[in-house]
This record gives sequence, structure tokens and C-alpha cells, in this order.
Amino acid sequence: VTLNRSQMEAFAKLLRHGALERAGKILDRIDPSEIPGLLQSFGPAEQQGLVALLFAPRRAGWSLRNVPEHLLRGFVDRIGEERVARLVESLSTDDAVWFLELLPLERVGPVFALLEPSVRGEVERALTYAPTSAGRLMTTDFLAAPRLATAQQAIDLIRSRSEESEAMSYLYTVDEAGRLAGVVPFWRLVASKPERTLAELMDPEPLCVRVDEDQEHAAELTARHGLLSLPVLDQDRRLVGVITVDDIVDVVQEEATEDFQKMGGMEALEAPYLEVSFWSMIRKRAVWLCVLFLGGLLTATAMGHFEGELARAVVLALFIPVIISSGGNSGSQASTLVIRAMALGELGLRDWWRVVRREVGVGVALGTILGLLGLARILFWPQRVQAYGEHYVLIGLTVAASLVGITLFGTLAGSMLPFVLRRLGLDPASASAPFVATLVDVTGLVIYFTIARLLLQGTLL
Amino acid sequence: VTLNRSQMEAFAKLLRHGALERAGKILDRIDPSEIPGLLQSFGPAEQQGLVALLFAPRRAGWSLRNVPEHLLRGFVDRIGEERVARLVESLSTDDAVWFLELLPLERVGPVFALLEPSVRGEVERALTYAPTSAGRLMTTDFLAAPRLATAQQAIDLIRSRSEESEAMSYLYTVDEAGRLAGVVPFWRLVASKPERTLAELMDPEPLCVRVDEDQEHAAELTARHGLLSLPVLDQDRRLVGVITVDDIVDVVQEEATEDFQKMGGMEALEAPYLEVSFWSMIRKRAVWLCVLFLGGLLTATAMGHFEGELARAVVLALFIPVIISSGGNSGSQASTLVIRAMALGELGLRDWWRVVRREVGVGVALGTILGLLGLARILFWPQRVQAYGEHYVLIGLTVAASLVGITLFGTLAGSMLPFVLRRLGLDPASASAPFVATLVDVTGLVIYFTIARLLLQGTLL
Repeated sequence: VTLNRSQMEAFAKLLRHGALERAGKILDRIDPSEIPGLLQSFGPAEQQGLVALLFAPRRAGWSLRNVPEHLLRGFVDRIGEERVARLVESLSTDDAVWFLELLPLERVGPVFALLEPSVRGEVERALTYAPTSAGRLMTTDFLAAPRLATAQQAIDLIRSRSEESEAMSYLYTVDEAGRLAGVVPFWRLVASKPERTLAELMDPEPLCVRVDEDQEHAAELTARHGLLSLPVLDQDRRLVGVITVDDIVDVVQEEATEDFQKMGGMEALEAPYLEVSFWSMIRKRAVWLCVLFLGGLLTATAMGHFEGELARAVVLALFIPVIISSGGNSGSQASTLVIRAMALGELGLRDWWRVVRREVGVGVALGTILGLLGLARILFWPQRVQAYGEHYVLIGLTVAASLVGITLFGTLAGSMLPFVLRRLGLDPASASAPFVATLVDVTGLVIYFTIARLLLQGTLL
Repeated sequence: VTLNRSQMEAFAKLLRHGALERAGKILDRIDPSEIPGLLQSFGPAEQQGLVALLFAPRRAGWSLRNVPEHLLRGFVDRIGEERVARLVESLSTDDAVWFLELLPLERVGPVFALLEPSVRGEVERALTYAPTSAGRLMTTDFLAAPRLATAQQAIDLIRSRSEESEAMSYLYTVDEAGRLAGVVPFWRLVASKPERTLAELMDPEPLCVRVDEDQEHAAELTARHGLLSLPVLDQDRRLVGVITVDDIVDVVQEEATEDFQKMGGMEALEAPYLEVSFWSMIRKRAVWLCVLFLGGLLTATAMGHFEGELARAVVLALFIPVIISSGGNSGSQASTLVIRAMALGELGLRDWWRVVRREVGVGVALGTILGLLGLARILFWPQRVQAYGEHYVLIGLTVAASLVGITLFGTLAGSMLPFVLRRLGLDPASASAPFVATLVDVTGLVIYFTIARLLLQGTLL
């Protein structure tokens, strides 16, 4: 629901005057996706009221992460440690950690000291896990019951939990030592006779991850099996947390974004485009751009070796851009396909030979198509003799042959580089299209001039 | 759990001899992600047994879509229409539609005729929705109860559903006309006193989509709000289906894959890399490659206008590849960032001016860095006089100034093209990096030679 103008003004007024309860009633009817836009259109007083509302316990889960970080920071700057601590306590563990990371470092200590001991313990434990580990993503707010409890006892346990919990789709069962034993979907609990034990109702050996495993692995398991949540175990197989599917969707989106940015030839940003600072943006982009530029300078060196040929047949220079960019384009197609297929688990290291066989065929076919197009362009160009001289047929053949060679090389280099990187333990997505293109540029020039020497010897050269 | 060698052999033997019940017990312990690999390692007899097992009602939901399509097709080719119809009936509506689309056209009619009328009706209705609509993604297998039913009656309803249903995390409530009224999370049903009515327990006005809305919109809503399922309404706001979060994860992955492939400079594939036929792969890649090649040929035309300059100063040719590829790289960074931010909803059309302001600054900064690198490379190169002649300082300045101009142009073109495409109602992801690079190539040459004319007039030119 979008507010009309007068409703919006009424809402702003309530926020300005701190009538948060009444403002909250209006907020409940607003689509959370509109909140960032609302925040932008508001003045500081309304912004502060709205952010305070978003932090109210009932609403925290669903909207906090939609608020632009600089607005959250601005809000937090204006409130005392005591209030920050109460806000943190109202969040689930994963959100609490995410939120604490937004705080300026000098405030983290004081806020920590004010946290309720149980919350502090959970947050401290979560912070010991690596940033991309399952432990950092999990919430410790989940439902577990002993294997030998009855369905009725489990239902009573659920009743005793006063607040809504984000992880409540499954009840997990544990043994005496707290080790994960099984999972009971809620609907089965509801459908069961009250006296049956959870051991009878549960699916034994549910899928799970260890606390130190990568979030990407957790996302893959959850997505592939259509789970609503995934239990997280410590080294002794004790159940310590649960990853819920809404966080998994975030991980999937973030991983894709990172891969996009790497493949676009830059380091992955850590925040949305408009929130990254100017200098951080320059850093993320300049490093790769300089690396590619220094690599690209090799083309100048390579061409230096063919300066004699160039001086004798300047016409050869005309086709350099289109030839090397065709190599780059075919390489970028191949690397994109392979990188994405690897990210989705469709291709593994052992598939490299199948990919080579396929890409050789594809490269030759695509190169032949481009070669014929290039040949036609030169042979049927109206001013062919003025533009390319009397040997235009030979020039055409040189261009065509080079296109076949370069397209094939681009296709192979683009498809194999991700395998090489992965074999070396690096992220295949770093085989960005620009990286492949630069690699192919240098080789492409050598291929082009070598073919020119062969075909034009005795005529132009 | 991965099977060891002897367990694997026992499993294969059971499959070969059609002991499907015992094989099923083993299958339950295998990680579904291993199934495609298993299928590949098996002979035809074992493959057939395993696919049959995967189709058994209890397992259908979680693994069918993991099986490579050509294996499914092969399996279906070997069984009769009657059996195919029973398999279709065992699937949820969305899976049934997906599966029917795998059938050869001539078998669809006969299979349809054999379907149970209620299933046939649901599948027929689903097929009337557009392929990327919410209607095609939803399952019609969901739980709904009248608003005035009690918690106890709702629980009895759940008990009466004998099979597990994939959509069971929420119970939806409807009014007398079947219109969506509210949603009751299962846990709340469990926690409630039996005599309370659903109207008291439900959240009114839950988020929902219309049957003809795009799947992408459904995915955005679900992801943003952390929902476990999303109700789907017809034109009269009647509840007709539910989209579950596991299907949403698939949509998110597919959308990202499509964008990846478009940005890699090709049409999106419709199946995993290894399953796309050779000719279909050529078609998807050749079209864009040819378009880019024809665009790239403009560079030859553009350079034709500067042939005089080139003949007088061949040294200028040496830097053409690195200069134009720097423009392409900076353009590819900018377009990648903007396209992804648009896909995530971080940037909208109205943000274009903020992006321009930002990219002008970024472009000038990055161009200056590259320009200085290029200048240093020429000024401090040991063989600078032999390689670039006595006017090497002027050459260096030409290269440096061109890099600033081209990087700035690439950054602006790369960031604005997605806005233009989106304004025209096209997919911004089609502003693939290669497309931007080709655009920048032509302009880059003009910039380079124009600067060369200005700076080298009277010396080299």
C-alpha cells in the first residue's frame, strides 16, 4: 500500500511529534520496500522517528536490513549506549552481529557492557566465527526439544515462547548431550496425536552444516533441498543455531552480486552502489583497471615487434581493433558461461575436458562465421581498392584467417581460465571478462601479424 | 552421506533387479546433490531404476529437478503413457507443468487424457499463465480455511491431509467468496487455544501477488520480507495458489544466471551449460558476436579516416589496443555495477543524475591514474628513443590525455546505457560489457587521433 499525499503528511507529523504508537499503525500498512524512499524524502526529525519505529521489537526482523546503512548510522549516532544496547537485545543473533558491525569501534565496548549477559554471550560467540561462515549467519533463537518429549510437550514448549521467532517452521530434536537427532516439521506436530514422542515423528539425520563451514555451502544445501531452515552444529555435533531460508536468499543474492562485480573486472563492493564512498569506489575499481592496463601495455610491446610490417602496410592497423575485440568477446562469453555454471555446481573440475572438446567446436564454428563476415566486408566494400589497395583479397583472407584463430583462442582461454583459477584455489569469478580480453589481446596481435607475414610475404610485406 | 564402493555396488544391484523398496532405503541416505553424478556413473538399467525411485511420490518434490533433463527424457521415453500420467499426478502443480514440458509434443495429449480430472484441470489452468508469471510458479496444493473456523478445526483440517505438502508453513484464511482474508503461521496455530477463531489469530491483508504478475516481482517480495510462502490471487482476489520459498530461490538463481549470460555478451541459455545442444549454443552466442563484430567493423572505418596520420606516425598504432581496451574495461566496470544495482532494486530510473555525477568523478580519477601510468611507461622506458622516436614525450602526453578522455567516456557510456535501455522498456542487462566496449572502441579511436592531431601537429604529423 502506498500512502497518498495527505496520509503521508499525517504520518510525517506523527513521527515528528514522537507519536510512535499511532505512527506504527500506519507503518504496518506500508510496503517495506518503500521505506528507503520514505526515509530519503523525510527531514531529520521524521527520519529519526521512523528509524526508531523500525527498531521496535515487533518490526525489527523484517525491515531493518532494508534501511540504508548511512541512515542507520546517523540514527545510532544520536542515541545513547543504553538505548543501543536495548535495540541489539531486540534483534536475532545474526541481525545483532550485523548491527554491531555498523557501530563506530569506540562504542562497541560500552554497548557490549550494557547488554544482557545471555545476549552478550551469544553475540560474542557469533563474533568468533569467520565472517562468511555458517556460524555468522545463524540465529540462536530456535526451537529444540528432547527426542523423548511428546508432541503435546513440544506444543506446550512452543506456547511458552511468547514472542514470534523467525526460525519457527521446524522443531529440532536433540539427544541428552544436545546433539542433533532429528527434525519435526511443524505441520506434522500439529497433525500428530498428542502422546506420540518426537522420536516417532522426526526425520532422523537431517541435513545440517558445521558452524565453521562456508555460507555458500549452506545456501547450496538449502536451495537444492528446498529447506525452510538448516540446523548448525558445533564440532561435537551439538545443535547451536539455525540458518533460516530468508537469510539464504540474501546469501544467494550477495554471492551473485560479488561474482557480477568480479566478472565486470573489479573487486566486489561491500555495500550498495550509492552507499559506497567515493574513495572506496576508486580503490575497488582502480586496482584491477591498473592491472589490466599494465597487462594491456604488453600489446604495445608485442606490436613493437611488428612495427616494420605496420610501416610497410598501414592498412593492417585498420583491422586491429575489431580483430582483438572479437577475441575478447568470444572469450568473455566462454568465461561467463563456465564461471556461472561452476557457481551453480553444474560444472566441476573434472569436467574440464568435456568443456575443452565442446569449446573447440564452438570456437571454430563462431570463428568461421566471423571470418566469413569479415571477408565479405572487405571483398564487397565499394571503395575496396582505394581503402585497402590492390591486394585487398589477400588482406581479406588475412583478416578472415586471423578471426578464426583468435576466436578459437579466446573461447579456449575464456573457458579454461576459470578451471585453472579454481584448481589453484582461487575464485573462478576472478577470470573476469576484461582479464580474459587482455590476455587474448596480446595473443591476438601475434596471431594476426603471423598470419599476415605468411599470406602477404612478397606482396605487401 | 557418500556411499563407499561396496555400498554403491549393492545399491546398483538392487536398482538393476528392481528391488526399489530396499534401494529407496539407501537412497534416503544419499545427499541429493550426488544424484546427477550417480546417474552418470550408472549403466542404463541402474539409471532407469534410480529415476523411477526419484519419481516415487515421497521423494518427488525434493530431487526431481536435480536430475539432468536428458536422463529424465530418456527415462520417460521408456515407460508408457499410463505410468507417465501417474507420475504427473504425484507431483505438485508447478513440478507437473515443468515435467510435462519435457515430454515430446505427441505424447502430451495422450498423457493428458489419462490424468485424473482434478489434476488435469489444475495443470490446464496453470498452462494458461505466461511462462514467467506467478501463476506458472505456484502450487495449487496449499492449506486454506474459512476465517471463522477455529484453531481446532484448522488443526483437524491439517490432520486430514494425508500427504506431506510442500506449502505447509502458513495456513491462509479466506472469506465466503474464497477471497484471501489473512494468514496464520503454523506456530501460532499450534500455540493457540483450540477454540479461538482464525480471524482472531490471523495477520490481515498479507502480502500477495496476482496470478499474472511477474515471477521476479514475487521473488523480490518474498526475499525482502523473509516470507516462507506467498499467496497468489486471481483477478477477483480469490486465493488460487501459493508460491513457496524454495521455488523463489530457484527464480533468484535463474534471474542472476540470465543477467550473467546477457552481460557476457550472449543470449541467455535455457538449460545448464552441459545440456545445451551444440547448435543451440552456437545460435545463442553467434548472434551477439556478429552484432558486436559488425559494430566493431566501424573501428576500421573510423581508422580509415586517420590512415594519413598512421602512415606518418606508425608509432601511434602501438598504443591503440591498450587505449581502447582501457575504455572498454572502465565501461564494463560501470555497466556491471549499474546493471546489478538495478536488478537488486538499489537504483531506479530517477537516480540517473546521481550516477552521472558520481561516475564523472570516478572516471576522471581512474583516467588520471591510468594516464600517469601510461606516461611513466613511455617516459621511463629504457629504449624510449628507439621505440617511440625523438618526440617520445609528446607521444606520452598524447597517450596520457587520451586515457583520461577514454576512461571518462567509457565510465559514462557504461553507466548510462543501462538507464537508456530501461527507459526504452528493454532489459538493462542487455547493455552487456562487450556492447559497451564496442561502443567505446569506436569513440576511443576518434578521441585518440583527435588528441594526437592537436598535440603532434607540426612535429610528427
